[in-house]
Amino acid sequence: MTEPQTLSAPHFDAPFRDRLAELIRWRRDVRRFRRDPLPEDALERLIALATRAPSVGYSQPWRWVRVVTPERRAAVAESFARCNADALGGYRGERARLYASLKLSGMDEAPEHLAVFSEEEPAGHGLGRTTMPETLAYSAVMAIHTLWLAARAEGIGLGWVSILDPETIVRSLETPPTWRFIAYLCLGYPSEDNSAPELARRGWEHADPRATTIHLR
Amino acid sequence: MTEPQTLSAPHFDAPFRDRLAELIRWRRDVRRFRRDPLPEDALERLIALATRAPSVGYSQPWRWVRVVTPERRAAVAESFARCNADALGGYRGERARLYASLKLSGMDEAPEHLAVFSEEEPAGHGLGRTTMPETLAYSAVMAIHTLWLAARAEGIGLGWVSILDPETIVRSLETPPTWRFIAYLCLGYPSEDNSAPELARRGWEHADPRATTIHLR
Repeated sequence: MTEPQTLSAPHFDAPFRDRLAELIRWRRDVRRFRRDPLPEDALERLIALATRAPSVGYSQPWRWVRVVTPERRAAVAESFARCNADALGGYRGERARLYASLKLSGMDEAPEHLAVFSEEEPAGHGLGRTTMPETLAYSAVMAIHTLWLAARAEGIGLGWVSILDPETIVRSLETPPTWRFIAYLCLGYPSEDNSAPELARRGWEHADPRATTIHLR
Repeated sequence: MTEPQTLSAPHFDAPFRDRLAELIRWRRDVRRFRRDPLPEDALERLIALATRAPSVGYSQPWRWVRVVTPERRAAVAESFARCNADALGGYRGERARLYASLKLSGMDEAPEHLAVFSEEEPAGHGLGRTTMPETLAYSAVMAIHTLWLAARAEGIGLGWVSILDPETIVRSLETPPTWRFIAYLCLGYPSEDNSAPELARRGWEHADPRATTIHLR
């Protein structure tokens, strides 16, 4: 035995499960932030919990970069502006107008910026990822999702910005060559709340029945 | 407005947050299952909640395949056996002996098998994934993680089997060509419980301090 353990699983009652479902429904990708800072220890606490996420072969490949200098934040914001302009160029007519009206990043207001990477040469002795090496990145994604839910449970919003050029981010943040860029996260207190995704409210996309279908094989 | 919405976010109190942290810590990758079936509506309920996970551009790309026929289950089990033997061949000495002693799949006992895919041509009009198309797969992963936590809150265990050949799975399950294989999940009631990952308890790998380090940039 190499780690402390207990053997009897906790019971989660119906009221807890209802609240958990409410948390999952209210999570939201937040892009409208207040500018006031998070509590001093918030990031550290949230990351400590996020590291309890599942990882392939117990590889724990997630790596966390808190982006604080204005120069680095500006480089990321510039990558977003360029990639977003390129993306807009791919739409026409009414959809282009709608795209241009969407707020897709809260980078300018969010008090905390957290870039997340997966280490491609992590712990775990390679277990479980020979045939599907992408499970390393997937592990980092589950850590992000854990952090997301834990943040929301404290009233802290998180927005995932993916309209970025990974090479630019890696260069700007000077991360090790074995780190793969996974996500750029903005964190802060939401300046507004909503039970439905903004893209649904604005008519960009609707709930897709294919996403809930269970196929039998 | 195209979706019903409410505007005032719920408050999650400290006791709830403590329980959420406990759930996250107790989640576990379960490989030892009882054989008794899940409640009739369990999968449907869990998947309905999982579809509230974040997805890039509201693409909702996750696709669910409940694998029920013995022939298909056998094909998947055979792929696991072959890939696991190959993986064992990559270790030497003491580590090979340890690998061979690990139980890495609960496929033979788990009453439910759920294969998860991401649709590479989903809803969302391409928003958010031009520069990082892998965010579609990441969205499916967050749906899986949502399902995982929700299952555990009901006392249902989930094990993610990644020691598989994706092409074999796709062929065996006859899924559409635009679906990418993400994960093969086993679900059922755990036959034992533990607060620490099996790979930690067995000495395969330890908690890695690099996974909790916050790098400043």
